Amino acid sequence: MQIAIALFDGFAALDAVGPYQVFSHLPGAQVSFVAERAGMLADDRAMLRLGADAAFAEVPAPDLVVIPGGPGQSGQMGDGPLREWLLAADRTSQFTTSVCTGALILADAGLLAGRRATTHWLAMDELARLGAVPVTERVVQDGKYVTGAGVSAGLDMALTLAGQIAGDEVAQSIQLGIEYDPQPPYQAGSPAKAPEQMVRRQRELSRFTPAGQ
Amino acid sequence: MQIAIALFDGFAALDAVGPYQVFSHLPGAQVSFVAERAGMLADDRAMLRLGADAAFAEVPAPDLVVIPGGPGQSGQMGDGPLREWLLAADRTSQFTTSVCTGALILADAGLLAGRRATTHWLAMDELARLGAVPVTERVVQDGKYVTGAGVSAGLDMALTLAGQIAGDEVAQSIQLGIEYDPQPPYQAGSPAKAPEQMVRRQRELSRFTPAGQ
Repeated sequence: MQIAIALFDGFAALDAVGPYQVFSHLPGAQVSFVAERAGMLADDRAMLRLGADAAFAEVPAPDLVVIPGGPGQSGQMGDGPLREWLLAADRTSQFTTSVCTGALILADAGLLAGRRATTHWLAMDELARLGAVPVTERVVQDGKYVTGAGVSAGLDMALTLAGQIAGDEVAQSIQLGIEYDPQPPYQAGSPAKAPEQMVRRQRELSRFTPAGQ
Repeated sequence: MQIAIALFDGFAALDAVGPYQVFSHLPGAQVSFVAERAGMLADDRAMLRLGADAAFAEVPAPDLVVIPGGPGQSGQMGDGPLREWLLAADRTSQFTTSVCTGALILADAGLLAGRRATTHWLAMDELARLGAVPVTERVVQDGKYVTGAGVSAGLDMALTLAGQIAGDEVAQSIQLGIEYDPQPPYQAGSPAKAPEQMVRRQRELSRFTPAGQ
């Protein structure tokens, strides 16, 4: 199975590497990082560089597409090389997926029109504005479109898909191998659980919050 | 605060990128990936390449050291550039940390002698053999030495430390930002939770299991 993870400058590192860590252990999977041009792409913190193995044109028909998010997502809206590749790849993909604000790229390309989907909690209104039906769940599947919530949700998204692709036992075995038995020291990972003031502050600072709100 | 994440060929990607995703959002933190030579390092699946910004010698005294694990750990035991750098950096570090089998590198270098520590569940006996006191916990702290369990535990390790470094509110705010509200679709992430036969099979296949056991 050929799996392509798209990269662009300003992606969030874990959005891409979480799914990679799971999918790279799928038996028979070949995972490629693809971008407009092969080479190094910097993440949104500009302190990490990940290699794209291939240009989009070299991986035209992957079985599984992963679109990560991150602040750089804003540069991938509208026409452009990523959208062109995404729309072509989506015609033959078994699964087209996203993590975090990668869902906005899918939606902007028209792939989530009327479909249930999720994204980073700060971008749910924007996802609706782009025509999807936002659902507050960690992983949302609507047909072959599978979207994960913010950043770290790519791990849960990929494990869910690994089970569908290779069976529950393989997915569980990958989970055991990467010892994914999460025990965060705080319970602040969602707006429903974090202190109210912290949620409000992040909303105020968000690039998705219209000015004045 | 200067944070250095060591890389070597055959590291496990999430071991390095999990802590990075947390630490790169610490106010004032400068995170560098360092290796024997600056350049690209391939992960253990040989399908991901991460950039090392600097050679070890260029980052001699980071405040926080992260040693990831992965199968490539075996090439970092004994004398060599990584150990030499690690021992020098540890003299002035505020924290010396590891994820997964990175703990074996710390232990082999003598830094965990008689100290409580953890590692990937398959490597706990090896950690004891190298002089540490293995503890089956997700994150173990003994003085300035902070070790995380397998692969994905680097997220929990880094959030724990983020709280100590910058306070609970900052750590919680990072958790909310990366929406770290884990909901794995299976409960197989530790040997205590996974099917017994699966645990046995991974033990049999493990490079840490003495032949014949």
